[in-house]
Amino acid sequence: MYADTAEAEVAVAGVAADTEEVNKLFYKDNTWSATPTDGHPEMVPSDAKVSDAKLTTRTYGDGAKEWEIESPITFQYRVRESADVFALDSDVLLFGHLTTAEDLLRAKLRALKRVVVVDDNVYKLYGERIDAYFAHHDVQVKLMVLETTEENKDITMALKIAEAVHELGIDRRLDPVIAIGGGVCMDIVGFAASIYRRRTPYIRVPTTLMGYVDASVGAKSGVNFLGKKNKLGCYLPPALALLDRSFLASLDARQLSNGAAEIVKMAVVKDRELLGLLEQHGPALIEHKFQTIPAAATGEASDGVEAVGEVVGVGEAAPSRVLFLAIHTMLQELAPNLWEDSLERLVDFGHVFSMELEMEVLHTEKLFHGEAVAVDMAFCTVLAYVRGQISAEYRDRLLATMRGLGLPVYHPKFDEAMVEEALYERVKFSSGQKIPLPTAEGESRLFNDISMDQCREALALWPTL
Amino acid sequence: MYADTAEAEVAVAGVAADTEEVNKLFYKDNTWSATPTDGHPEMVPSDAKVSDAKLTTRTYGDGAKEWEIESPITFQYRVRESADVFALDSDVLLFGHLTTAEDLLRAKLRALKRVVVVDDNVYKLYGERIDAYFAHHDVQVKLMVLETTEENKDITMALKIAEAVHELGIDRRLDPVIAIGGGVCMDIVGFAASIYRRRTPYIRVPTTLMGYVDASVGAKSGVNFLGKKNKLGCYLPPALALLDRSFLASLDARQLSNGAAEIVKMAVVKDRELLGLLEQHGPALIEHKFQTIPAAATGEASDGVEAVGEVVGVGEAAPSRVLFLAIHTMLQELAPNLWEDSLERLVDFGHVFSMELEMEVLHTEKLFHGEAVAVDMAFCTVLAYVRGQISAEYRDRLLATMRGLGLPVYHPKFDEAMVEEALYERVKFSSGQKIPLPTAEGESRLFNDISMDQCREALALWPTL
Repeated sequence: MYADTAEAEVAVAGVAADTEEVNKLFYKDNTWSATPTDGHPEMVPSDAKVSDAKLTTRTYGDGAKEWEIESPITFQYRVRESADVFALDSDVLLFGHLTTAEDLLRAKLRALKRVVVVDDNVYKLYGERIDAYFAHHDVQVKLMVLETTEENKDITMALKIAEAVHELGIDRRLDPVIAIGGGVCMDIVGFAASIYRRRTPYIRVPTTLMGYVDASVGAKSGVNFLGKKNKLGCYLPPALALLDRSFLASLDARQLSNGAAEIVKMAVVKDRELLGLLEQHGPALIEHKFQTIPAAATGEASDGVEAVGEVVGVGEAAPSRVLFLAIHTMLQELAPNLWEDSLERLVDFGHVFSMELEMEVLHTEKLFHGEAVAVDMAFCTVLAYVRGQISAEYRDRLLATMRGLGLPVYHPKFDEAMVEEALYERVKFSSGQKIPLPTAEGESRLFNDISMDQCREALALWPTL
Repeated sequence: MYADTAEAEVAVAGVAADTEEVNKLFYKDNTWSATPTDGHPEMVPSDAKVSDAKLTTRTYGDGAKEWEIESPITFQYRVRESADVFALDSDVLLFGHLTTAEDLLRAKLRALKRVVVVDDNVYKLYGERIDAYFAHHDVQVKLMVLETTEENKDITMALKIAEAVHELGIDRRLDPVIAIGGGVCMDIVGFAASIYRRRTPYIRVPTTLMGYVDASVGAKSGVNFLGKKNKLGCYLPPALALLDRSFLASLDARQLSNGAAEIVKMAVVKDRELLGLLEQHGPALIEHKFQTIPAAATGEASDGVEAVGEVVGVGEAAPSRVLFLAIHTMLQELAPNLWEDSLERLVDFGHVFSMELEMEVLHTEKLFHGEAVAVDMAFCTVLAYVRGQISAEYRDRLLATMRGLGLPVYHPKFDEAMVEEALYERVKFSSGQKIPLPTAEGESRLFNDISMDQCREALALWPTL
């Protein structure tokens, strides 16, 4: 039956078999119409809006039709340094996500409603200021203080947030969900917002260094599932990430070192200036919690930062410059690959072997993510040296820089079996090794020719350094 | 503290306050680098890949930095007519989603694994053929036969599917999840696939007319939440939708009419040819279940379709042409607005008042979605007439066409209070009325000036027609 029908179809459609027509689409009189991409411009009315989408229609030999849809969606979002997000005279937390004057006007004419999700620890420290802020701005708030730990980071907690959003009844375009906390808090809230009504805007306010330089700036969200990290998630970026480094003043040294690992990563893969700042000021950055470093501690306050014409106190400049460069370099790598379509990612540096290490020690010791990343980076540094890519001097500078930031550069459980397993998983999931390794000061490249022999040599050398 | 730090930052960054630099990004030596969009072309190496993404960096008066990320993600997918998806000699169900020769080669070199989710009713009818198909192609199958009803359409069922995908351990790029069933089945599977590992490819094989012309061709997925339809969901399109109209032969008349409502919608809003075919062949299409119409039933078999040079039996041509046009027009409206960023949607025709009607009668009678849509379209037709947009003759032709397809064109519960409530909700969620109404044969426009007086006049006239 179908063979006949198919022929009939082709005849009715007026096209020969095995044809292809690529159409662009234009909007006129409330309707989208198709016109061949190679057609004359006059086929599109001058007042029509032309879409970037394409619709291709094919007819196969058996008469069957096939459409191919190509539809670009542009994700647009902002990451903004903000000195004091809870300052009563600042409305950036309420309106900073809006990009047009029209939306701002609409938002200001309405009663304000916000679901605000806060880490329990953050609420202990900043609860009064948070409450005062929303009260001052006359916002109807549904505040959720959650114990956002890795163990609680699951779909149940995400649904609790979605339920709160549903109950408050927010405007799906104007009223963002606000997450104030660490990476776990931002991952859960981001996921809840991403799936509620197929997307709801959300704002991230990171309170940890790891959140500040890593979790807050990209599009990824997720919750753990079946005991595996972030197995459920989305790629919807926040409408806004607000970076307020005064939060970092409340962190302890180990938490700061944890986040610093991701800064080291960006420095090693692509930024010599950032690497130099970490090398020079690492211990002071941790000690003074990325706030202003006292002049006595810089040892060169009168000289200022060398590279800059205007003399600026290093104590002032170094912390903010480090944070700026960490975000700036990260966004350069993220923006062109927001949905991780490309598996060729320098930002995977430190993340090839660390996942195995984290899983290995999960039930025996508390290893922070950044610490596992640091151990991975240290191994990869030794591996790059063994492969002849970097000098012994640069190798030792990198290890010293990490040590200076209070990061571990070795772990006894990181052994041959682990390396073998990690390489196997890497090749399986990334269609090849594609492993980032340092090649020069603030430069790295991806490699596909790493052998187990080289890894064994690096493993043998590593504990002696 | 911050004021000073901020000034220092600006000086270190070497830019004056209140500046903006818009950068494009290029890939060279495994690294993404930024270059001003207004910079000289020679700043981008000739062998670099340039991204469509943009990264804008701003410095505010207080020295704070802001980044704006613009990242276009192109969603690409195919919708394909396929005569017999379970034919043993066809591998379209296994490999039809792959678009490059490289992926096809990779996929064929590996053991095949598929999670297949099937409606229980579909499995009763096609289970043997489905089992035989995957056995023949030596596929390791995790077959899930689910009772996919509106009541079961929740996150629990979606997670069950995600768990099966996790247990089977599929390749996140090459192995799609396959959904075979009605709209509910496709919505749940689409959602599970969309969130598992932040996206997993999936294939839709609709077995109902509603699925064929509506649910399968777009990007939307979703599950019910807190008693509300599709409150959780995503916009990730399937890798492939396979349209096999032989499934329609197993449906009863009411199910076919249900799906036909969405075809009427597309005809009324933008396709005169489609409208003519429905007007002429409506009853025969339903009676013969969108399969070949016997010559005796067409009443003009020897003439063929008038508009076409080559004479083709109407019985062959009409069903496939109707289905082709329904999909083709739908995709024209969907492709440029895949994530529903624009609220100006002609495809909302029949969906402005129907949701209220569906909710109103939820517990008292079983009204199909398409039936509610038809009642809504009938009211809007009368409203367009009352407003002087269409003639009485065209109004009656539209009502007759719907009746010919077995659709209701009136419902006593559709009253003034319901209209008022629906208009209120519409304005709230769509930032204005933006209501599609017919204006000419196969043409509609969006209107924002519909008054309750007009609605009352239409409500009074409606039952007399």
